[in-house]
Amino acid sequence: MATYVLVHGAWHTGELMEDVARPIRDHGHDVHTPTIAGNRPGDDRRTGLEAAIGSIVAFIEERELTDVILVGHSYGGMIITGTADRLPGRIRRLVYWNAFVPNDGECLNDMVPPHYVALFDAVSAASPDNAVMLPPPIWREAFMNDADGAAAQATYEKLNPHPYATFTDAIRLSANPAEMEVAKSYINFTEDTALPQSLGWHPRLSEKLGLFRLVQASGGHEVCFTNPTLLAEKIIEAGRD
Amino acid sequence: MATYVLVHGAWHTGELMEDVARPIRDHGHDVHTPTIAGNRPGDDRRTGLEAAIGSIVAFIEERELTDVILVGHSYGGMIITGTADRLPGRIRRLVYWNAFVPNDGECLNDMVPPHYVALFDAVSAASPDNAVMLPPPIWREAFMNDADGAAAQATYEKLNPHPYATFTDAIRLSANPAEMEVAKSYINFTEDTALPQSLGWHPRLSEKLGLFRLVQASGGHEVCFTNPTLLAEKIIEAGRD
Amino acid sequence: MATYVLVHGAWHTGELMEDVARPIRDHGHDVHTPTIAGNRPGDDRRTGLEAAIGSIVAFIEERELTDVILVGHSYGGMIITGTADRLPGRIRRLVYWNAFVPNDGECLNDMVPPHYVALFDAVSAASPDNAVMLPPPIWREAFMNDADGAAAQATYEKLNPHPYATFTDAIRLSANPAEMEVAKSYINFTEDTALPQSLGWHPRLSEKLGLFRLVQASGGHEVCFTNPTLLAEKIIEAGRD
Repeated sequence: MATYVLVHGAWHTGELMEDVARPIRDHGHDVHTPTIAGNRPGDDRRTGLEAAIGSIVAFIEERELTDVILVGHSYGGMIITGTADRLPGRIRRLVYWNAFVPNDGECLNDMVPPHYVALFDAVSAASPDNAVMLPPPIWREAFMNDADGAAAQATYEKLNPHPYATFTDAIRLSANPAEMEVAKSYINFTEDTALPQSLGWHPRLSEKLGLFRLVQASGGHEVCFTNPTLLAEKIIEAGRD
Repeated sequence: MATYVLVHGAWHTGELMEDVARPIRDHGHDVHTPTIAGNRPGDDRRTGLEAAIGSIVAFIEERELTDVILVGHSYGGMIITGTADRLPGRIRRLVYWNAFVPNDGECLNDMVPPHYVALFDAVSAASPDNAVMLPPPIWREAFMNDADGAAAQATYEKLNPHPYATFTDAIRLSANPAEMEVAKSYINFTEDTALPQSLGWHPRLSEKLGLFRLVQASGGHEVCFTNPTLLAEKIIEAGRD
Repeated sequence: MATYVLVHGAWHTGELMEDVARPIRDHGHDVHTPTIAGNRPGDDRRTGLEAAIGSIVAFIEERELTDVILVGHSYGGMIITGTADRLPGRIRRLVYWNAFVPNDGECLNDMVPPHYVALFDAVSAASPDNAVMLPPPIWREAFMNDADGAAAQATYEKLNPHPYATFTDAIRLSANPAEMEVAKSYINFTEDTALPQSLGWHPRLSEKLGLFRLVQASGGHEVCFTNPTLLAEKIIEAGRD
């Protein structure tokens, strides 16, 4: 039995990872799905990256979890990298699933094409609390490309405004991911166009990990919604010894 | 029920799309498979790009088709782009299937590697009517790589000499595809080597669409022959809301 | 019935290709699995590239094999290229399976990222007979990424120290692969990270073949261990007319 902590992406909550957690639990594993500070119902959307990372550090420490397989989706890659840096002794393996891989001093926006940064800047500036939402057509076409229109609409309604400071705050790390001693995996879904594939997840970001285990499968950015059972299998392949 | 118009590639005819049309019709849709001017049995092979586009514009207007999902294969990407520019009110979505995506002023040959342009120049110069055919070894290895030799031979015999001016004429567009208001999808078959994959269809040409929906599957350039049922499924995924 | 000669990669032997040979034989084909000089139990690990190539040339000549489909894995790409150059009349088709494709004057290390060359230099320098082994974590994560830990360990124990001169000797060819008259195929397994995918097998090395047939499937570098039946199917697709 292994211990998994699944860290969701921007606009999501831990609850939205439950359909992924269930089939992993069915294999006998212990699976946690915390919600990052800033994405919880009452949270201040002015939450920054350090507080977001701190909330997952605290989650693991409070439960005294050890030998953790720490999985991060998209923005969650920022969080698991920071968490492993703060809690090296408790993490067995980092699993990035179409996730950002920051070096020390980088922010998420440094890894995103300029037209997305410009869009997020404009949306957050118009928000009362520095929050960003994704325009529905981008969600439908670039994130939920492997779903029908009804599923794209239904899942959009479950998203929450995301604290934009977590995209613009630089991460502080004592070592870059390639130098971290923890084992690392990268799960890449081959139809993921949340980043344009010319400036994509793998190998552009995955290779910042140094030696890592690649796991790939067919699907878009939101396989937690479109194919949670396949995602669970891939998480197990990425996390196993 | 949706209305699909399937626009074939170079050397093909609409008739060769029938095995793709049938399973789409089995889902209750209305599917048309016109042959582009220049590829019909008696057509002058000196037909240029404007006349080729005009023939599909006329096909749609004469039948008063509206809310069309307009699918183009390979060279057909030139045709559907021009058609959407001429008939914006009638097209619901453009679906490029391993297809060329031209900006205003570009010709097909601008998107093809120099060794293919040199080959086509030589073949057309030796032709009495500026037509090009594909040498059988290229068809067999680079286009029909996912078939056996007998299927490669049988399909080669169904091809027709292609009007070369449609590769060298620049397209005239009032807006580039990225700026067109119509929805767009790109279907990429991952073993398609009709273009060398270092200078390939996706993401090099697909990203000229701006926001688009990516659909991918396994197969070569001629899945209309090697796997028409899978292609039909992918066209439906690309065309649905 | 066709004649296949399967040429293994570095650290392997012909015996380790038997699970691949068997399903090809079940289709009625004649399949040979020689071990390259330098990798046989008693061989001097100071064996160089010319002697390694010569051993496969001799294997084919002694058995008077003709119309051979010559398959090479990884380092085996060096060997089959040299063999086709020495024995043009006996080879029907070259099949590279995630294999190196050398031009005249290149050595294997010329196609490998600098950090691997540095690693191999250090390991071979510490060896009494200029042999190299792969560190277990690289084998487990980058070569056997599609396996569990037990399979990674069990297969590692079957490997043999590899003669490093075969990586550093330049190959002598009378023509580069793109100019060779023999037919060519490239099999690419899409999760193969033995080379980093930013500097990978396909299309970087495959396109050195000129016109070639691409066959792809899901798997890592060692599908001879992780999925020999699928590999056998892909070899048949790559080798058929």
